[in-house]
Amino acid sequence: MLFEEMWRELAPVGRFDATGGYRRYSYTPAELECRAWFTAQATSRGLTVEADANGNLWAWWGDPDEGNAVVTGSHLDSVPDGGAFDGPLGVVSAFAAVDLLRASGFTPAKPIGVAAFVEEEGARFGIACLGSRLLTGAIDPAKARALTDEHGVSLADAMAGAGLDPAAIGRDQRLLDRVGVYVELHIEQGRAQIDLDAPVAVGSAIWPHGRWRFDFEGEANHAGTTRIEDRVDPMLTYANTVLAARKKARVAGALATVGKVHCEPNGTNAIPSRVRAWIDARASTEDTLGAVLADLEKATHERADRDGTRVTVTRESYSAEVAFDAALRDNLGALLGDVPVLATGAGHDAGVLASSLPTAMLFVRNPTGVSHAPGEFAEMTDCLVGAEALATVLRKLAA
Amino acid sequence: MLFEEMWRELAPVGRFDATGGYRRYSYTPAELECRAWFTAQATSRGLTVEADANGNLWAWWGDPDEGNAVVTGSHLDSVPDGGAFDGPLGVVSAFAAVDLLRASGFTPAKPIGVAAFVEEEGARFGIACLGSRLLTGAIDPAKARALTDEHGVSLADAMAGAGLDPAAIGRDQRLLDRVGVYVELHIEQGRAQIDLDAPVAVGSAIWPHGRWRFDFEGEANHAGTTRIEDRVDPMLTYANTVLAARKKARVAGALATVGKVHCEPNGTNAIPSRVRAWIDARASTEDTLGAVLADLEKATHERADRDGTRVTVTRESYSAEVAFDAALRDNLGALLGDVPVLATGAGHDAGVLASSLPTAMLFVRNPTGVSHAPGEFAEMTDCLVGAEALATVLRKLAA
Repeated sequence: MLFEEMWRELAPVGRFDATGGYRRYSYTPAELECRAWFTAQATSRGLTVEADANGNLWAWWGDPDEGNAVVTGSHLDSVPDGGAFDGPLGVVSAFAAVDLLRASGFTPAKPIGVAAFVEEEGARFGIACLGSRLLTGAIDPAKARALTDEHGVSLADAMAGAGLDPAAIGRDQRLLDRVGVYVELHIEQGRAQIDLDAPVAVGSAIWPHGRWRFDFEGEANHAGTTRIEDRVDPMLTYANTVLAARKKARVAGALATVGKVHCEPNGTNAIPSRVRAWIDARASTEDTLGAVLADLEKATHERADRDGTRVTVTRESYSAEVAFDAALRDNLGALLGDVPVLATGAGHDAGVLASSLPTAMLFVRNPTGVSHAPGEFAEMTDCLVGAEALATVLRKLAA
Repeated sequence: MLFEEMWRELAPVGRFDATGGYRRYSYTPAELECRAWFTAQATSRGLTVEADANGNLWAWWGDPDEGNAVVTGSHLDSVPDGGAFDGPLGVVSAFAAVDLLRASGFTPAKPIGVAAFVEEEGARFGIACLGSRLLTGAIDPAKARALTDEHGVSLADAMAGAGLDPAAIGRDQRLLDRVGVYVELHIEQGRAQIDLDAPVAVGSAIWPHGRWRFDFEGEANHAGTTRIEDRVDPMLTYANTVLAARKKARVAGALATVGKVHCEPNGTNAIPSRVRAWIDARASTEDTLGAVLADLEKATHERADRDGTRVTVTRESYSAEVAFDAALRDNLGALLGDVPVLATGAGHDAGVLASSLPTAMLFVRNPTGVSHAPGEFAEMTDCLVGAEALATVLRKLAA
């Protein structure tokens, strides 16, 4: 099946018409349909398909038990109202690269794998790259099983509902031993390649980044009868934190974003009892990131003292800086001609897997810089160049 | 049935165990159960029950077509996680007052009515006192029919689902012509009676108040890859508005509250595309209220210009100052002995009905000042004093 045909087949799955964005959350019907698509694509190519114990999907060309496999892929889940390319581009390109290699008569000397990691965005259970974190043992299985989505459904129940055994999750040494190298192709998510005239780039590193949950507690009361001086309003403390996060990040040359907020009871005429919000923060060094968060927590607690509110801060996930394998990176750069080498602020499964095996990334140009939004876009010509580049890389690594 | 028995019977309906608060939203199962309770209470007393064309409930002692009826009551719906007293206290007290009058052998010379107005809180369809506004023609029926709840269900569909005809809503002159006077008993919602040693007070006026919806629009994008200078983040403009609303209200001696906010797409790692929030604002005069809102809109637009965001402000509801009928107020004050006379910042159906007929309010002491929250409370002894006072008032007015 041609690249464009695969793309068209996947395009309507989990698309939310009102926004034009995607809502492919792990183990929901939309994401299960994406998984079925993966299986159908693999099967139609005669590849062996398996879901590993952590819910990640693998399609094998050759016998993976021979070891030293060359694996490529990405993820199929999305952020709320995400774009079409973030994740699926890497999976579609992986199948397309297999087709290109076969069409050229190539016979791999090592097994080649196509992977789709589950819950990369953390949109349902709150922890990004959950599938690769479980695979590598970067998260405690018991803690992971107990994660809940916003409806209170646990990961354990969601996995069981999809026919998987939640008791079996955790580091999978046997599977990791099969894999010699992982190369992930992904749409670039900022403006880095726009002015470089480069449809494809090689990744150098991922910024340290994390998610912190801020719980602001006050006292619900009547909006029309409670005097200003009697109020304990957590919305005020929250609002101050939003502005402080931006300011402290800007001054430090870092990034901080408040993209998710819940208010209780969320009634127009009631002072809130609680506001819960998440800070996504990233910086080029861990020292900078730590300093931004420390400053922000201090400012938040100072404001809370004035408002009479209580604030607790919970670090929900954290990823140290990842430098991709240097030899592999240089190898890919040489192979693809003089392509740019870029660091990114976005987390990826390739970053998590880097703790256990050599990994690398290829980026495909994003002509608008938009990502995690319905308007995310890449030119089909660039996508095809990306698939060709990936095939070139696989041919070299699996030779 | 004794007051306490009625209270115990109603207590579990629509109570949300996790918070201890009530979620009795119009035409939902919990509220329909409250309506069934109303009908059962009325029927057990031999009162005639009817739902009017706008969904309000009426129970009649005597023939309402004789006109000049003396009506008392309140509402049964709640804010999200509201308290047990706001609304139901007035309805339970109304039935209790009927019992007291009958037990004393009183025979009314005029019909006496017990009313429960629908959607007083506006918690489901966004407009407070919707039932009394429809009855008096204070809202356009077509506009009301098109109001939707947060799941997109229209008032028309919700009414039809409850067996009512949405085509029939609107000002009901025949019903209004029946009513000579309306007296609403309600829990006081602030701290006004605490230091006055007064279990019961008489209402003088309702502050002008309204709800304004602020829509902040920006551009969704990736939280990890979008440079600070490329961001169009509506959460920042929103946060600034929250802080500005508090400050401007405090300086003006008014009240402003942001109790409800929605964020899209509400993903941890995405800059929001849109934040929608509601400002509840109240002041002792319309001039002050207007000035607070004008100042706030100006500050919001200035900040939006800096953030590159767009803001639209929609006034969703507005109530001018209501002074209750002066002669009736003085009459009640004299009848109940030297009870305090209070203005309130809270809206009530008695305030809406005041445009069409003489209305009055009795307040029952709130010993904590908490309202619109699970902790809302009144002493049962005070509630019984309130029911006695209401019976005294009905006896006088219906003689």
